[in-house]
Amino acid sequence: MSTAIQGLSLINGEAVRGQGPAFRAFDPGRGEALAPEFHAVSPAQVAQACELAGQAFDALRATSDHERADFLEQIAAQILLLGDALIERAMAETGLPRARLEGERGRTMGQLKLFAELLREGSWQDARLDEALPQRQPLPRPDLRLRLIGVGPVAVFGASNFPLAFSVAGGDSAAALAAGCPVVVKAHSAHPGTSELVGRAVVAALRHCGLPAGVFALLAGSGHGIGEALVGHPAIQAVGFTGSRGGGMALMAVAAARPQPIPVYAEMSSINPVILLPAALSQRGAEIASGFAASLTLGVGQFCTNPGLVLGLAGADLDRFAAAAAEALRSVPAATMLSPGIAAACQRGTEHLAAQPGVQTLVRGEAQACQGAAALFKTDGAAFLAAHTALSAEIFGPASLLVACADADELAAVLACLEGQLTATLQLQDDRESDLALARRLLPLLERKVGRILANGFPTGVEVSHAMVHGGPFPATSDGRSSSVGTAAIQRFLRPVCYQNLPRALLPAVLRDPNERGVWRRRDGLLTRN
Amino acid sequence: MSTAIQGLSLINGEAVRGQGPAFRAFDPGRGEALAPEFHAVSPAQVAQACELAGQAFDALRATSDHERADFLEQIAAQILLLGDALIERAMAETGLPRARLEGERGRTMGQLKLFAELLREGSWQDARLDEALPQRQPLPRPDLRLRLIGVGPVAVFGASNFPLAFSVAGGDSAAALAAGCPVVVKAHSAHPGTSELVGRAVVAALRHCGLPAGVFALLAGSGHGIGEALVGHPAIQAVGFTGSRGGGMALMAVAAARPQPIPVYAEMSSINPVILLPAALSQRGAEIASGFAASLTLGVGQFCTNPGLVLGLAGADLDRFAAAAAEALRSVPAATMLSPGIAAACQRGTEHLAAQPGVQTLVRGEAQACQGAAALFKTDGAAFLAAHTALSAEIFGPASLLVACADADELAAVLACLEGQLTATLQLQDDRESDLALARRLLPLLERKVGRILANGFPTGVEVSHAMVHGGPFPATSDGRSSSVGTAAIQRFLRPVCYQNLPRALLPAVLRDPNERGVWRRRDGLLTRN
Repeated sequence: MSTAIQGLSLINGEAVRGQGPAFRAFDPGRGEALAPEFHAVSPAQVAQACELAGQAFDALRATSDHERADFLEQIAAQILLLGDALIERAMAETGLPRARLEGERGRTMGQLKLFAELLREGSWQDARLDEALPQRQPLPRPDLRLRLIGVGPVAVFGASNFPLAFSVAGGDSAAALAAGCPVVVKAHSAHPGTSELVGRAVVAALRHCGLPAGVFALLAGSGHGIGEALVGHPAIQAVGFTGSRGGGMALMAVAAARPQPIPVYAEMSSINPVILLPAALSQRGAEIASGFAASLTLGVGQFCTNPGLVLGLAGADLDRFAAAAAEALRSVPAATMLSPGIAAACQRGTEHLAAQPGVQTLVRGEAQACQGAAALFKTDGAAFLAAHTALSAEIFGPASLLVACADADELAAVLACLEGQLTATLQLQDDRESDLALARRLLPLLERKVGRILANGFPTGVEVSHAMVHGGPFPATSDGRSSSVGTAAIQRFLRPVCYQNLPRALLPAVLRDPNERGVWRRRDGLLTRN
Repeated sequence: MSTAIQGLSLINGEAVRGQGPAFRAFDPGRGEALAPEFHAVSPAQVAQACELAGQAFDALRATSDHERADFLEQIAAQILLLGDALIERAMAETGLPRARLEGERGRTMGQLKLFAELLREGSWQDARLDEALPQRQPLPRPDLRLRLIGVGPVAVFGASNFPLAFSVAGGDSAAALAAGCPVVVKAHSAHPGTSELVGRAVVAALRHCGLPAGVFALLAGSGHGIGEALVGHPAIQAVGFTGSRGGGMALMAVAAARPQPIPVYAEMSSINPVILLPAALSQRGAEIASGFAASLTLGVGQFCTNPGLVLGLAGADLDRFAAAAAEALRSVPAATMLSPGIAAACQRGTEHLAAQPGVQTLVRGEAQACQGAAALFKTDGAAFLAAHTALSAEIFGPASLLVACADADELAAVLACLEGQLTATLQLQDDRESDLALARRLLPLLERKVGRILANGFPTGVEVSHAMVHGGPFPATSDGRSSSVGTAAIQRFLRPVCYQNLPRALLPAVLRDPNERGVWRRRDGLLTRN
């Protein structure tokens, strides 16, 4: 497989030139455009990719779990075969350092392999069997069997901040392909070269596994038109998106206005409150401040789980925490952000927050063009409650607001007025009943607001596993019923089908008796491998 | 508990008079309004019910599975205690016969008990545990635990055609309460007295179980305003609706336009194709015709699973089927429908279908006011394909269209142009390879279109069990990812929450070690009762 980037899209297994306007990637570290030139796809090319995906759906979902598992593992292998060319191009397109991108490549391959494991285990289909009761009175019960199937072709929009793990072969694509859904990816315009390389790896894996070319397409482009055409195409049956609130809301509107509305899983906006409980703040304030500063500035704050809000009870302990955090943040140099647009938005957001009434600037680093600098602000609970919409707007970057609350009631009121979040973190002493009691009071509120509740850690760093939830109530995501990370993500691309009195010869394998694979199924509601 | 109907709503556990306009129920059999007068609730009363539901949510979800199971069973017991007063009022308000309503009461109680069983079994929470790996390189893994929790208060809109099983204490309410979600029911204006009685039973069960009064409310009213206010209220977190396509679409629009959009599970429109495969048609045509006529006219055709479309290959066998079905239908007398509005809509729909080009009337019975009469029409595949939107519009009543297709390709093309459906039925000979081969060809297409695929039965009659899917792609429902019947329905009102490194003292019981209840959970993705 060639690792030369040609500026092409991938449709029907072929590298094709877009019929739309030209654009280039941009190296935010060097401040210069990158070769080669890309061309956006045309509406006709979007439609072609979607139609091929619709045609490939039945062939893909007819493959066995083991065949799709092999396919996912083959994608991982092909990504590794791209070698250093992938890492170097991703570094140039994102400004992210080598170690981070090598780690992200490992994570991307790991999540493909985890979905392969899930398929081999087999119970993802939620097979259920309620056998016929022909003698039942007053009416016999028919034979009923349920399984989950893929919803159909999925449109995936990659995130700027994870050019591998949340992009072309990232979590949404892995989950959709595992579910048997073809994928049409709109390449992020900030990393089109990285996208092209990974797209070629997916196409190589498709060929290796003998799957139809329509199972995967990669569409280059810049601007909103292609995304709207993609989400509006009748063959597309679900959407995965990670990005801005405005972008997500626009796709939700397109999806809802279709003749057939479809689900959109958009991850959009979160400020991830960190709550400093009194005993923890008293006993470990300096250590928490240091961990907080590291979490806030990790990756120049360009994580959706970035801790953008810190809450504590006003007092000397919180003042010491603020001073320690400010000192730690002052020592973190400004660094290159993903794109000039992201750096400018971070700058604007930081300025806007600094200008709010009642907001005091504790730290505000100097940043050159295309850089982000650490910033920490402070306000009190009353000021926050009076202007919570302005004070809780996400700043995508290393900026956070510390809120000194008068008491536990005010702290709870601040949490209650927040919108949905990906995470909330409790810093607490688990040997101190006072912290545990306050945590018990806050937990029901946090459960209603967030997808993941952490104790004594920081929200950055999202494990890829079975029990992870990377999601949360609106606007953290458009649909709090699912996760975009971990094996639970497969559920977003599945729907149930029931088979009533179907002859054994026509039943899907997972619903036939005997249960040859020994997959966990429910008989009359009870789990069994029989 | 009194069984006198007072024309009241139920808010905060109290029977209250609505502050809005008066209206009465109507007896479609006698053609007269029924006492007493009801009063629609005011916007302030809607808001009060929703706020109380929001306040009661934490208390309800803090109950154990066993406590909520007892509550559901207590609702069933209280419904039975209403005795014949319930059946008689439901007969008067719906025109449905006693046996049907007694059966529906049993079904309603049965589904409450089935959800109680589901709660006692315990695995509905999808508990997952990925334990900490502190030694893992390059980074340790935190302890991660996932469970599902209720989404919050649910607005439920009952169906006219199931005044018990899809109404106040019907499937949506049972699923929501099982999930730990308070319920605010908008009583169907066609059966407000039946609703009031069942609502009183729910309130009695709440009191018996010592649960907060805000867990349940019943709002009387007529017209769209109350429903829109209910769905628009910020405390409401999901919507269950069964009714017309227009009504469902209106609620979807309200839900999508909220500052925080919420999921809507609207069951709206389905014509439930029945496909007559050649060998079955040849060998059992007369028997299928008789079963079809019975299914079409059951309950005066007032089922969302009514077989409104029959497809077969043109020829002598299909002609004989048509003649037999027409003869059977001619012998079915017209009968009272649920309401004058439903009867008039059925009449209009039948007239409209009869007037379409290429549509031949085989049977069209005479109906008095407020009655529905059996009707069967015939067309060919080419005519259907040329005007499929008009020819596939749902007629809610005992009317069906037989489509004679030129060949299997045309039959597949007719199926492909249908919108999403609740069901599809294959009449086939399972000992004839020709029928099986055609069924195998059609199944992937049907799986993409419908929620339940039947062989050799008829779609009316929906079993309440674990493997049932009563749902399907749009517009059969607004969200094909779920079922409104059977235990799978609980999933529509759940969302996942992950707990990272939470001290044992703060973990929800289902996620603690040891697993005291022995509930099925996943450890590193594998099911275990440890």
